[in-house]
Amino acid sequence: REEADGGGKDELARRFECFMAPPVSGMRELRSRRGEMRSRMEMLIMETQGQVCRALAQLDRGAAFTVDRWERKEGGGGISCVLQNGEIFEKAGVNVSVVFGHLSEEAVQQMRSRGKTLKTKDGKLPFCAMGVSSVIHPKNPYVPTIHFNYRYFEIEEADGTKLWWFGGGTDLTPTYLNEEDAVHFHKTLKEACDQHNPELYPKFKKWCDDYFYIKHRGERRGIGGIFFDDLDWPSKEEAFQFVQSCAKAIVPCYVPIVKKHCHDPFTPEEKLWQQIRRGRYVEFNLVYDRGTKFGLATPGSRIESILMSLPLTARWEYMHSPPENSREAKILEVLRQPKDWVH
Amino acid sequence: REEADGGGKDELARRFECFMAPPVSGMRELRSRRGEMRSRMEMLIMETQGQVCRALAQLDRGAAFTVDRWERKEGGGGISCVLQNGEIFEKAGVNVSVVFGHLSEEAVQQMRSRGKTLKTKDGKLPFCAMGVSSVIHPKNPYVPTIHFNYRYFEIEEADGTKLWWFGGGTDLTPTYLNEEDAVHFHKTLKEACDQHNPELYPKFKKWCDDYFYIKHRGERRGIGGIFFDDLDWPSKEEAFQFVQSCAKAIVPCYVPIVKKHCHDPFTPEEKLWQQIRRGRYVEFNLVYDRGTKFGLATPGSRIESILMSLPLTARWEYMHSPPENSREAKILEVLRQPKDWVH
Repeated sequence: REEADGGGKDELARRFECFMAPPVSGMRELRSRRGEMRSRMEMLIMETQGQVCRALAQLDRGAAFTVDRWERKEGGGGISCVLQNGEIFEKAGVNVSVVFGHLSEEAVQQMRSRGKTLKTKDGKLPFCAMGVSSVIHPKNPYVPTIHFNYRYFEIEEADGTKLWWFGGGTDLTPTYLNEEDAVHFHKTLKEACDQHNPELYPKFKKWCDDYFYIKHRGERRGIGGIFFDDLDWPSKEEAFQFVQSCAKAIVPCYVPIVKKHCHDPFTPEEKLWQQIRRGRYVEFNLVYDRGTKFGLATPGSRIESILMSLPLTARWEYMHSPPENSREAKILEVLRQPKDWVH
Repeated sequence: REEADGGGKDELARRFECFMAPPVSGMRELRSRRGEMRSRMEMLIMETQGQVCRALAQLDRGAAFTVDRWERKEGGGGISCVLQNGEIFEKAGVNVSVVFGHLSEEAVQQMRSRGKTLKTKDGKLPFCAMGVSSVIHPKNPYVPTIHFNYRYFEIEEADGTKLWWFGGGTDLTPTYLNEEDAVHFHKTLKEACDQHNPELYPKFKKWCDDYFYIKHRGERRGIGGIFFDDLDWPSKEEAFQFVQSCAKAIVPCYVPIVKKHCHDPFTPEEKLWQQIRRGRYVEFNLVYDRGTKFGLATPGSRIESILMSLPLTARWEYMHSPPENSREAKILEVLRQPKDWVH
């Protein structure tokens, strides 16, 4: 059995070591159920959190991550890692959560509205949801903001049927457009997707452009990336392998861009434009983001972890409109009309 | 006829002079229909805009209001007055809008969900909505933010029945609690209400505390004031008189507080706390405020005027929590457990 999941106890112990905190389910539990998807996904999200936090901390020597381990009264908990006011990062949060219990009637309704037909018993459904999610806001306006999220959901219906699906994505929000960076970012994501199926990247790239749309502004939040939800094909194993490839692509997607620009000189006007763009980030997250809205409406959810995604500072100027042909106008163009960065 | 509404042409011409811009309906129209509630309300909101803008501009000699007159393709338009980056005010917006046309099916549904039974013809309803709304964010953390809004709505049902109602309110959001100011503010509002009916202030004070609730934080946005909607009693005339008293109370509610504190010394830490509170203001407005949500979802609405309410700058710190017994903790207490300021 130990060979079947790619290693024995020592291999698992080695993987535990890179975690930022003890996992929510406990090491003993993860070890004893290591063949189950829940445990494999929890390992993956914990490893992703560790890898990303270490990569960022290495870049930003002026700062360290604060690690909060929290519990959820209704079942489960999470680990929030936050770096605030570093030299390179203004606010970087990487959050893991593993929650279980019974879906509320509201949540069941919401899932039904998304096309899921769920057979409940007395209106209640046992579920388990876990994920890693992160937003990194750098100080320098030439270093873009990144967001990623990878999650797994399991529901047991009244008749014992088990439903499961994955969701996730990685997307980039620059203050100024750098085409070389945009290509690098999308190319790295495309390569991760292409290992599994050449249809994934184009589909999930479009989904990302559609999802991160600030309708009242007629703009996307950023230059996109990939986004997907309800992924329950071609098989649980293959879907997991795909999610794993995406998670492994986060650091190579982003870290080279940070390294390249984190010491770029910038003017106060460029910082101001960044702050205005941060305001749009807040607008998207509070008005449209499904995860944020769901979290804010869920009793017992941890507000500080949900709103970790908001920037440290943001700005709203009345009727701000950059001059034609400026670099500020150039990024707006791409936000209004998304481009294909790799073919 | 001219005596009936309290003056002749000269009286009206004199009232027009204090407007910040020509009214949306045009002076000729307002004059010829001066007995109708639509026109009387438009006069009131234009006068309120003029009075408030002049009072603020007089306080803040470093700044002037930008006046934008805009038209709505579907019918009507508005006048937005904004002062940004003044000496005393960081961002002050006073907006008038007068819109008419046909209610969308969505808007009809939303009104039905609020308990209105509307008889439509082919699903469409002619309507007219007008109001003045304003948010004033000062620089000094010892000067509170004020918000007010007074509006009038008319709908003509398929069978010719005319529905109408008023809505509005004035509320205060301090960064630090000053009990004397809180009492002055509420007392001024109470006096305006009491002229009409002693039951109004307690009822609308509670409504305000209930409405400006940031559910996910368990806090109110500020220390309240008054709030009401669907006011269609005791008569159109009396409801209008009440709204007029409220509108006239805005300047005496607020200006003495600004004068008292606008030169108070403050530390960078106090400014920081203000910025965190501004973040909460953004959370309320984008997540809960019915007017903002309605505006953002309405095709053809003027986004810049709707989001004028957002502060120039805001801040989100992870897990910020003021020390026990600090002045920051003291205001939080009142936001969590609203107080009665006048009896």
